[in-house]
Amino acid sequence: MSLSDRKLRMGMIGGGVGAFIGAVHRLAANLDGQIELVCGAFSSDPEKSKKTGKELYLAPSRVYGSFKEMIETEAELPEGERMDFVSIVTPNHVHAEPAIMALEHGFPVIIDKPLCFDMDEAKAIQAKVKETGVPLALTHTYTGYPMIKEARQQIRSGKFGKIRKILVEYPQGWLAEKVEDTENKQASWRTDPKRSGKSGAYGDIGTHAANMAEYVSGLEVVKVLSQLKNVVPGRLLDDDASAFLEFEGGVPGVLTVSQVAAGEENAIKVRVYGETGGIMWSQRDPNTLNLMWNDKPDEVWRTGTAYVSEAAQANSRTPAGHPEGYLEAFANIYRNFAMHLRAIDSGEEHDVDIYDYPNVDEGVHGMALVDAVVRSTEEGNVWTEV
Amino acid sequence: MSLSDRKLRMGMIGGGVGAFIGAVHRLAANLDGQIELVCGAFSSDPEKSKKTGKELYLAPSRVYGSFKEMIETEAELPEGERMDFVSIVTPNHVHAEPAIMALEHGFPVIIDKPLCFDMDEAKAIQAKVKETGVPLALTHTYTGYPMIKEARQQIRSGKFGKIRKILVEYPQGWLAEKVEDTENKQASWRTDPKRSGKSGAYGDIGTHAANMAEYVSGLEVVKVLSQLKNVVPGRLLDDDASAFLEFEGGVPGVLTVSQVAAGEENAIKVRVYGETGGIMWSQRDPNTLNLMWNDKPDEVWRTGTAYVSEAAQANSRTPAGHPEGYLEAFANIYRNFAMHLRAIDSGEEHDVDIYDYPNVDEGVHGMALVDAVVRSTEEGNVWTEV
Amino acid sequence: MSLSDRKLRMGMIGGGVGAFIGAVHRLAANLDGQIELVCGAFSSDPEKSKKTGKELYLAPSRVYGSFKEMIETEAELPEGERMDFVSIVTPNHVHAEPAIMALEHGFPVIIDKPLCFDMDEAKAIQAKVKETGVPLALTHTYTGYPMIKEARQQIRSGKFGKIRKILVEYPQGWLAEKVEDTENKQASWRTDPKRSGKSGAYGDIGTHAANMAEYVSGLEVVKVLSQLKNVVPGRLLDDDASAFLEFEGGVPGVLTVSQVAAGEENAIKVRVYGETGGIMWSQRDPNTLNLMWNDKPDEVWRTGTAYVSEAAQANSRTPAGHPEGYLEAFANIYRNFAMHLRAIDSGEEHDVDIYDYPNVDEGVHGMALVDAVVRSTEEGNVWTEV
Amino acid sequence: MSLSDRKLRMGMIGGGVGAFIGAVHRLAANLDGQIELVCGAFSSDPEKSKKTGKELYLAPSRVYGSFKEMIETEAELPEGERMDFVSIVTPNHVHAEPAIMALEHGFPVIIDKPLCFDMDEAKAIQAKVKETGVPLALTHTYTGYPMIKEARQQIRSGKFGKIRKILVEYPQGWLAEKVEDTENKQASWRTDPKRSGKSGAYGDIGTHAANMAEYVSGLEVVKVLSQLKNVVPGRLLDDDASAFLEFEGGVPGVLTVSQVAAGEENAIKVRVYGETGGIMWSQRDPNTLNLMWNDKPDEVWRTGTAYVSEAAQANSRTPAGHPEGYLEAFANIYRNFAMHLRAIDSGEEHDVDIYDYPNVDEGVHGMALVDAVVRSTEEGNVWTEV
Repeated sequence: MSLSDRKLRMGMIGGGVGAFIGAVHRLAANLDGQIELVCGAFSSDPEKSKKTGKELYLAPSRVYGSFKEMIETEAELPEGERMDFVSIVTPNHVHAEPAIMALEHGFPVIIDKPLCFDMDEAKAIQAKVKETGVPLALTHTYTGYPMIKEARQQIRSGKFGKIRKILVEYPQGWLAEKVEDTENKQASWRTDPKRSGKSGAYGDIGTHAANMAEYVSGLEVVKVLSQLKNVVPGRLLDDDASAFLEFEGGVPGVLTVSQVAAGEENAIKVRVYGETGGIMWSQRDPNTLNLMWNDKPDEVWRTGTAYVSEAAQANSRTPAGHPEGYLEAFANIYRNFAMHLRAIDSGEEHDVDIYDYPNVDEGVHGMALVDAVVRSTEEGNVWTEV
Repeated sequence: MSLSDRKLRMGMIGGGVGAFIGAVHRLAANLDGQIELVCGAFSSDPEKSKKTGKELYLAPSRVYGSFKEMIETEAELPEGERMDFVSIVTPNHVHAEPAIMALEHGFPVIIDKPLCFDMDEAKAIQAKVKETGVPLALTHTYTGYPMIKEARQQIRSGKFGKIRKILVEYPQGWLAEKVEDTENKQASWRTDPKRSGKSGAYGDIGTHAANMAEYVSGLEVVKVLSQLKNVVPGRLLDDDASAFLEFEGGVPGVLTVSQVAAGEENAIKVRVYGETGGIMWSQRDPNTLNLMWNDKPDEVWRTGTAYVSEAAQANSRTPAGHPEGYLEAFANIYRNFAMHLRAIDSGEEHDVDIYDYPNVDEGVHGMALVDAVVRSTEEGNVWTEV
Repeated sequence: MSLSDRKLRMGMIGGGVGAFIGAVHRLAANLDGQIELVCGAFSSDPEKSKKTGKELYLAPSRVYGSFKEMIETEAELPEGERMDFVSIVTPNHVHAEPAIMALEHGFPVIIDKPLCFDMDEAKAIQAKVKETGVPLALTHTYTGYPMIKEARQQIRSGKFGKIRKILVEYPQGWLAEKVEDTENKQASWRTDPKRSGKSGAYGDIGTHAANMAEYVSGLEVVKVLSQLKNVVPGRLLDDDASAFLEFEGGVPGVLTVSQVAAGEENAIKVRVYGETGGIMWSQRDPNTLNLMWNDKPDEVWRTGTAYVSEAAQANSRTPAGHPEGYLEAFANIYRNFAMHLRAIDSGEEHDVDIYDYPNVDEGVHGMALVDAVVRSTEEGNVWTEV
Repeated sequence: MSLSDRKLRMGMIGGGVGAFIGAVHRLAANLDGQIELVCGAFSSDPEKSKKTGKELYLAPSRVYGSFKEMIETEAELPEGERMDFVSIVTPNHVHAEPAIMALEHGFPVIIDKPLCFDMDEAKAIQAKVKETGVPLALTHTYTGYPMIKEARQQIRSGKFGKIRKILVEYPQGWLAEKVEDTENKQASWRTDPKRSGKSGAYGDIGTHAANMAEYVSGLEVVKVLSQLKNVVPGRLLDDDASAFLEFEGGVPGVLTVSQVAAGEENAIKVRVYGETGGIMWSQRDPNTLNLMWNDKPDEVWRTGTAYVSEAAQANSRTPAGHPEGYLEAFANIYRNFAMHLRAIDSGEEHDVDIYDYPNVDEGVHGMALVDAVVRSTEEGNVWTEV
């Protein structure tokens, strides 16, 4: 029985009861009816893992006490019963080990961003992907939006001329108080250098913002001059980050992200300017892509219309005016990854331009950016190569 | 094995390859991992039904050539294997027969709006629901939005005083040309009085708009004065509708809907004014509920925040700033219906205020409104009781 | 000395200390440095008139105790000293008498809307304008916005095909309480049938809304079916009005205006739909004109750009991105009227398409609409010819 | 005759036919009927000056061939006939000389920003103001908006706690092409270091942006780390500028301004975040001030409402919903300056908190910022004290 005759079977590592991002991954995986969750090692606490599995209607035999047990046991199951790929949704410091182990056992991996804890781990994962040839997807969710696909196509078309300036921002307010001292699990590991890595705000959301800027513009960041701040007294990692960016070809950019911008929700926004006009996209109004021109009216491109690019249409599910949101963007990564696995299975070509997803190379580049951003601040806000 | 230990099994009637709303129902049913599609009679054409079943990874034995075959066959299967409920997503003239048959066989029904073809059918369905005690849900999708739940709670709280005016509008532009003469399946049945019923625009989207106004305000429409128009030459049903509404207690309202408002997408919007302030919600920005006041700043209430009502929180999946959309609103109806079925199974109480969904009575009332709206125009734009 | 060598001299009737609209007229007249206020009869109370004149730095000899005194006295002054035209900003019941007297003395008139108290007066004023050939301008302010000029040009160009539907709304909330029982002068006369005329909300703001719809579409309303409501208990005139409109050629429209839409400011908004697209303009964002299309991205046309029509450019003062507002729109009427007076004086042609302003015919038509709207409700919400 | 009995008489230096900002100053001065233009030296070309004076209906005897002639001649005229103050609207390199000369002759000065050409001139002007005690106003227009007054009051109230982050941006697109090579007068002097000074984009609009951030937050910038860019090939001055700012008390900020952000109009926007919430204001929607909170709904504060601060009310002219714009903001500076001159004349107190305007000290600080920003870039994007 080939993968084209059935749903893909997913195993999950992390995402126990009460976790935020694990639940989101499951919703995203569910949406299109292409993937079914068949097993999980949801927590390092076996009781909690079991409880989560029960809530998700899994067979008790497929709920594991550890990711090692899961990978090893599943690998022994017959094809068509065992999981087809694994989703890793643990805190950053528990990314590399399960990812590498999964790849070694031939399981494709979909993994929450940032790729892992540090650069050494990132290189190890990348090496394992190259060695095994097994695909790995990274959930830079925001590039899954149809209007971000559209933005990329618009920029790529050259209609704006040479790119001259890129602005990206991502303000949040949820860490304006020291919530890591409360029961807030999300805050707790994200502000802990032992679990999150060497950067807080930049590592968590700055990586999204930089990836967004690079994805839309098609240009990589090559140098940074950063200012990381630990704004809330007693916090161990940066909760606010600003940076001048230099993209390939000397294109300048500015990035501002914050977790202490009190009152902000989750307001990622990107602007790219060329010689004749530019684009603006904001997650607050995700189904709209604004095209700005110096010499004619601005244009409002919308998700689900007949006039948007094939890439935008392929990553949308409903006609114009039926708002799509964060979960649909997230689901695009899962669906595109699933399509890729099916294509590999059937020996068909996967159209990476239309059904693209972020991969391990973007993950490694993202980690290199974390390193450069941290170094720039440590050395006194100086230009630092990535 | 009780319903609490497993996903609910869904059968679908209609929704063959190429259909719009059937695919949307499936996405909505998938999202929360509470429901799995196990069987279907997707088309009156058995080949098309089979093809659809294959694309959905169903077992060929569970793909039926007709809804009768499906209901009868599934009813014979053992509990735990047979479908737990049925979703009906056919054109309006094929609603009543499968719905009544399903109810008679004890299968709960979730059905696309409007409830059915005409008032006689509506009453027959209602009678069958009363007789059998089997639940029926109607997919008035737009009341599934968290901020519509919030709006209802806000109005109900009495903070605006007595309600004085209700405005609801729903402009679309997709029928601005006579697309029913092309291959457009959606347009074709919706503009055909033999399949759609006695009203076009009002029947299709006016029913949504009126339901929205009633749901948010908590007041039923008791009288209407309408003006239905067939704007596009040669069209057999109204494609534009305006109406003065009188709600319970003499509250006035105005409804304007159109399928020929060229350039509009799917722009349902509702405003309710009381003595001290009012609310405004628009699907264009669905995660925002605007509260307006005469004597203090307007307030922007947002999906996913900690300060919204329990009803709004319970019908949302992600934190503030992670936009939820149409599919999530739709999924709320499926999830709430599934919760109700589980509650019946376990003998627990279902909290109809928090996990509500539109039911058969709203469906019958909606059909009565279609009747009244059509009569009002036929008799010369006069006040007509519902 | 011809009018081309100096500012035009304005006299004002009404607009004493504390009046709202009189002060606005003066700001509008001041803005362009084309007009100077030289005299006034600001109140029927001579002391109050004197006080107002002093605050406005007028010579005491030019501050009059009554409009009769002013018109007669000024008419005796030598050209170049006497006022060149008169601005009438009194409540509706004190429009006709001074207007007719001014026209008889050869003074052009600029007058606040609605034109006057009732249809008889309207016809008398119109007859006097025809008889004397002296110009009269009516301050339907909202058509003075550059983007309304643009909208009119866009519709007139035919790019949207035949017009199919017109929606106009004008919700306000300021009369949600019975403020006429307090010291509120504005509320007091506007809700008094002896001073305001036979309609309240419709007469005050419905006339603006209908005029806006007609101006933008280029189509006159020929029939109405209205529902006037006195919502606030004890109020003598309608404070809420809805109407179906029939424009020339059978084009349908809907008008909703209210003074009791609590929380609303002054939210006039117009939408016009044709066969291929439409326009939307809202005073909340007055420098933007939205063009909507069924088959391509919406367009955002903006005040002050190089690409808008000559009419829009000529009625704008600053480059794009320097917001213009209500006072600039109002000032356009004064400036265009002043240009017309100068053109008459110099014998040059006045370009009525670019530098247009509402005139007496629009005023009379507006009064006819008030009549028809009131009759339609009185006779039971029936279609009534204008 | 005291200043309280008449309009103030204004003389203007610069602002000849075709100039942008001179015309704007005149509109702003006209609006409130408090000021009349009586004389001018509109151009260094006497013919052009004469032509401008004629278009403005000035007496030929009061139109001068040079500012020197104007100041000297006017100073000889009797009080009550001579100008009361002078408005300087020339390019930056012709600010200091006429300003100092006017001050020496006892004429108050209102001057376009930036204060002057360089720091030496700035200090000379400041010294002259101190020496003479004659007032000088600087037209940082954007702080004249009522909602900016409101923002300042809101921040000052302490309701957001300690300020933690300030973001200010000002993108424009008008210099995306090398328009200084065309007939564009505005572009020509603004991109010429001999007339504009040592900075282009930062000097022209960065000074506005920094001033806005300081005004709203009540905190001065003490250190900068900048990146100035000459984006358009061949341009002699920066046309794009980014900077990290350090405000008093170590509060961080980010400034991004550009004249080559193609498609942008004039989009100044400021955000200030404290511990519990923040404010956002954008000139695109100038009558709205957004208050954001972490734990309750955002609030939309609006110009012209009864609930805004006395400062906001005093700097507004129309009720809520009648949009005020750029010219009204500009007029507030003129009106407040005029009120100050009247207060001096009458010996009354001038309420600097309600009727404030930017003065010479802000001008000098702004020039110091230009210096620091330029130095920071020249020295390699390093932190530089102001």
